[in-house]
Amino acid sequence: MRRAKITIVGAGNVGATCAHWCAAAELGDIVLLDIPQAEDMPKGKALDLMQASPIMGFDSAISGTTSYADTANSDVVVITAGIARKPGMSRDDLLGTNAKIVGSVAEQVKQTSPNAIIIVVSNPLDAMVQRVLQVTGFPSNRVIGQAGVLDTARYRTFLAMELGVSIEDISALLMGGHGDTMVPMPSCTSVGGIPILQLLDAKRLEEIVDRTRKGGAEIVGLLKTGSAYYAPAAATTQMVEAIVRDKKRLIPCAAYCDKEYGVGGFYVGVPVILGSDGVEKIVELTLTTQEQADFKKSVDAVQELVEAMGKLVNA
Amino acid sequence: MRRAKITIVGAGNVGATCAHWCAAAELGDIVLLDIPQAEDMPKGKALDLMQASPIMGFDSAISGTTSYADTANSDVVVITAGIARKPGMSRDDLLGTNAKIVGSVAEQVKQTSPNAIIIVVSNPLDAMVQRVLQVTGFPSNRVIGQAGVLDTARYRTFLAMELGVSIEDISALLMGGHGDTMVPMPSCTSVGGIPILQLLDAKRLEEIVDRTRKGGAEIVGLLKTGSAYYAPAAATTQMVEAIVRDKKRLIPCAAYCDKEYGVGGFYVGVPVILGSDGVEKIVELTLTTQEQADFKKSVDAVQELVEAMGKLVNA
Amino acid sequence: MRRAKITIVGAGNVGATCAHWCAAAELGDIVLLDIPQAEDMPKGKALDLMQASPIMGFDSAISGTTSYADTANSDVVVITAGIARKPGMSRDDLLGTNAKIVGSVAEQVKQTSPNAIIIVVSNPLDAMVQRVLQVTGFPSNRVIGQAGVLDTARYRTFLAMELGVSIEDISALLMGGHGDTMVPMPSCTSVGGIPILQLLDAKRLEEIVDRTRKGGAEIVGLLKTGSAYYAPAAATTQMVEAIVRDKKRLIPCAAYCDKEYGVGGFYVGVPVILGSDGVEKIVELTLTTQEQADFKKSVDAVQELVEAMGKLVNA
Amino acid sequence: MRRAKITIVGAGNVGATCAHWCAAAELGDIVLLDIPQAEDMPKGKALDLMQASPIMGFDSAISGTTSYADTANSDVVVITAGIARKPGMSRDDLLGTNAKIVGSVAEQVKQTSPNAIIIVVSNPLDAMVQRVLQVTGFPSNRVIGQAGVLDTARYRTFLAMELGVSIEDISALLMGGHGDTMVPMPSCTSVGGIPILQLLDAKRLEEIVDRTRKGGAEIVGLLKTGSAYYAPAAATTQMVEAIVRDKKRLIPCAAYCDKEYGVGGFYVGVPVILGSDGVEKIVELTLTTQEQADFKKSVDAVQELVEAMGKLVNA
Repeated sequence: MRRAKITIVGAGNVGATCAHWCAAAELGDIVLLDIPQAEDMPKGKALDLMQASPIMGFDSAISGTTSYADTANSDVVVITAGIARKPGMSRDDLLGTNAKIVGSVAEQVKQTSPNAIIIVVSNPLDAMVQRVLQVTGFPSNRVIGQAGVLDTARYRTFLAMELGVSIEDISALLMGGHGDTMVPMPSCTSVGGIPILQLLDAKRLEEIVDRTRKGGAEIVGLLKTGSAYYAPAAATTQMVEAIVRDKKRLIPCAAYCDKEYGVGGFYVGVPVILGSDGVEKIVELTLTTQEQADFKKSVDAVQELVEAMGKLVNA
Repeated sequence: MRRAKITIVGAGNVGATCAHWCAAAELGDIVLLDIPQAEDMPKGKALDLMQASPIMGFDSAISGTTSYADTANSDVVVITAGIARKPGMSRDDLLGTNAKIVGSVAEQVKQTSPNAIIIVVSNPLDAMVQRVLQVTGFPSNRVIGQAGVLDTARYRTFLAMELGVSIEDISALLMGGHGDTMVPMPSCTSVGGIPILQLLDAKRLEEIVDRTRKGGAEIVGLLKTGSAYYAPAAATTQMVEAIVRDKKRLIPCAAYCDKEYGVGGFYVGVPVILGSDGVEKIVELTLTTQEQADFKKSVDAVQELVEAMGKLVNA
Repeated sequence: MRRAKITIVGAGNVGATCAHWCAAAELGDIVLLDIPQAEDMPKGKALDLMQASPIMGFDSAISGTTSYADTANSDVVVITAGIARKPGMSRDDLLGTNAKIVGSVAEQVKQTSPNAIIIVVSNPLDAMVQRVLQVTGFPSNRVIGQAGVLDTARYRTFLAMELGVSIEDISALLMGGHGDTMVPMPSCTSVGGIPILQLLDAKRLEEIVDRTRKGGAEIVGLLKTGSAYYAPAAATTQMVEAIVRDKKRLIPCAAYCDKEYGVGGFYVGVPVILGSDGVEKIVELTLTTQEQADFKKSVDAVQELVEAMGKLVNA
Repeated sequence: MRRAKITIVGAGNVGATCAHWCAAAELGDIVLLDIPQAEDMPKGKALDLMQASPIMGFDSAISGTTSYADTANSDVVVITAGIARKPGMSRDDLLGTNAKIVGSVAEQVKQTSPNAIIIVVSNPLDAMVQRVLQVTGFPSNRVIGQAGVLDTARYRTFLAMELGVSIEDISALLMGGHGDTMVPMPSCTSVGGIPILQLLDAKRLEEIVDRTRKGGAEIVGLLKTGSAYYAPAAATTQMVEAIVRDKKRLIPCAAYCDKEYGVGGFYVGVPVILGSDGVEKIVELTLTTQEQADFKKSVDAVQELVEAMGKLVNA
């Protein structure tokens, strides 16, 4: 059997930590790519990580590069490229800059790895993943956004802390957008199979959902410089693993929904089955009236974002 | 840190496979004990398993013995001893014989490992674990029966097969007795957090619950000679791990319920938090009327079994 | 990525335990095959093992069968089929019977999985693997015998016990035949990189080599009924992993040597590089005079065995 | 069983990555500590890492703090604190500053975790670990420096790359100081048990040893800003694991040698057995004349460094 080839675009904290998790799980050989200005930095991180392998016992060839030629024929490409929002920067500045960066990455991935499955991590997520779809023209099952696994992981962590139980026993699903427009789904939250409301009152649960919504900002507030990378990288790795090992995970991803949930051609967080063909199925749930209303808000926000991006990239 | 000492009583397929899983996870040093008539067999299985360790990369001292002296001061003792029901054997024959065997084991564990947590696997489970409690006089948090994790694992396997999704995404809880008196809990079954009835109709679910109920018999029917051991051993290992690594797992075990669920002093399958102190908490759920009725049937069956055992051991 | 398909022929203890290790490591989907007379037994073991998967967290489809059609297009086939030597049975009785069984298996593997890599575990090993090569006509890099990894694992275990160190730190290589004609290689034995003779005197080492030579018999003597299966299955799994994950392991296998070591067309235990193409390289070492003499004895014994088999299968 | 408590002092890249590896292996509960000026940064990294746990399936409580009170009664303390050498900074500036920082850490560890085993990672390593011994007055088996595992890992990586074999098959030992005074030990280097010089010529091996010597600088040169952290953290984690799981690893550490190797009271890289009591044994090898000479150079360099530190801390 050939090993999987996994390219990670962006050798910052999220990208490099994603390389770390993927290598440690022997998911395949890994190419860590950054822009030419990064010079030998991706090579340095790759070599450092390789040097951990005899200790940790994993066989993954890890290399760093600034050239897309080295990423040719990747099975999976993870895109973490893009700038972070800086103080004083408008939403549209961020949107325009990252649309340009991510669009350029997508163009080169299209040329060099035409059969790859792409996982987009760059922000604002729901717009960036749409940009990758537009630029590559890949079928939508092969262009996926990472958001729901991360949000759900934060939610599960807070619940495990609250209840004093193993993180292994918390199952949950969050839908909709990343952040403010996240759709809480108490009916899709359980502990050892037990519905959460048997173990926790609705008010406390709402507080935990709220903390989850602001989960990224909480980490930024603590770190002061920089943002979260361990959990985002872990979430991305879970998606890579689902694809490379064809695990048929039923997890929330930002998937391209056309008729599904009546979305009409946008990326939004929904439960999917993720396997060797990427998004193999979008799982359609019956939503309550409240959930439907929240979900619609998410979709509207995505639509507005994508339209704003359209004006910026065509300007 | 001192390594945990784990004794497994009974070196048959379930016991030896339990040693296998525990060793592979480096849960501690393992003593595999069988009756004197087994002679060097436990030593043979232990040595064979040790010889797998350089390949699989685990450091666990595994030894075989027929003497309880070698098990002294174990942290966890797993009891798999007992005979299997043979054709033509009445329930009471089995009950009486195993009560005697398990009682004798318990007596010796009490003497040699007075601080151990005991996990009982021998059948009929709900009676045998009560017998161990009676003989040792240990506090009930330290005498636990394995049944629910196994039943739940079978149920989760059938659901994963039915839905074509990863086994990692199925969460479930089954309560009550092992087998015919199992209490189905559709409300405590979810896939990636999603309530099962959103994904499967009630009729098909009932068929799967029914197959689960008969799960042990299905394996016996296929194997012809002998009964299941992989899944029972895995289930037991999960309980050992929860204790040794203090994981606070929220899983179903046969736990001693007095006031809980109004049981009145018997062992029955309920959700518990399992950690370094054994059963650290029995989690009380609000049951539906149907669930309550089913649960009562389970408890009645256990009570009847324990009373029958009482007559046999006092005869 | 497609998952590897791994067929294990023979659902006895070695075969089933091999399925266990392979599944637990998610090396691929597994088909456990036995003869029609075994009826549903392979199905039973496969289903029992599947039911351990939700607990242990592995996604491997495991199925049991008695039909080669279900094994079609396997990537790796492990052959454990054959009878054990019974009291009063001559060497030639065993040789003739197993050559017939293994030859028939090989014929069917050739038809159904023409591109598979075959790992032979059946005894007498050096003859059986030659038989598989003859019957299939596969290139010799795709027909490999398992012996050296097991012998080396036993040797490493004894050394770790003797020195009181982690099994992770013992490296060793044994060459030549399985059993009496094993070639001890003190120069290829080290602990944390340190040559063994810096840590242990030659006399004690010789005793440990001798115990290793008789390692299989020691287990048989302890078990009374049956022979070793944990370590043989682990050794086989390591070879499957090397192939499926393309690990380029440098380990001892029974490989077909023609000019290498001047063997002249027989299988003998030598160090090889094992990867996705099977035996990718036979590593030729410079042997001492003593090692050469011992190795020649091994080769002579294999040659004699193969010739005896030739007469039996052509009779 | 109580979980191990592991404190990591210094929440920079090495410290945080060490927390990552330790948590992922469930070695215990982890406290990540930094100086008060770091404010909530350690909390942020700890929380981010916790949020990876539901995905990666590990139960480790990870917390961040700036107060030693939260580290009370740790079983293992890892010290990564200290500044990096900046351009224009003299060796003595670095030595004096870090001796002060590390001495202050040691003072507080002594007060709050009087029974801990301390692993020192701060540079210059051989001096810093001596400083910790001086300040704590702990028995020397409980104060250990990390250097040899890292150097050896780099060496093994280069060898695996050169030979095209699995990193799992390379065993090696490097002695003496970290960097220029490293003692190459070709006789303690093997591949699948095979002495390296059977596979590689002496000249090429010397080049690889030389690259290893400069391994840290190579990473610095590539990264431009910052130094290696993946492999240093992995090396440290291996030591933590050996202690917490009582693995009796035979690996090279900076250990306090008095009569051993005739060192006379300094820390130098030697093979040790590392288990629950820390350095349980220093393994004394017979060195060749060349190795002895190289080793003496290492010891002399350490002695000179320690004396220079002595003047600085007493000034």
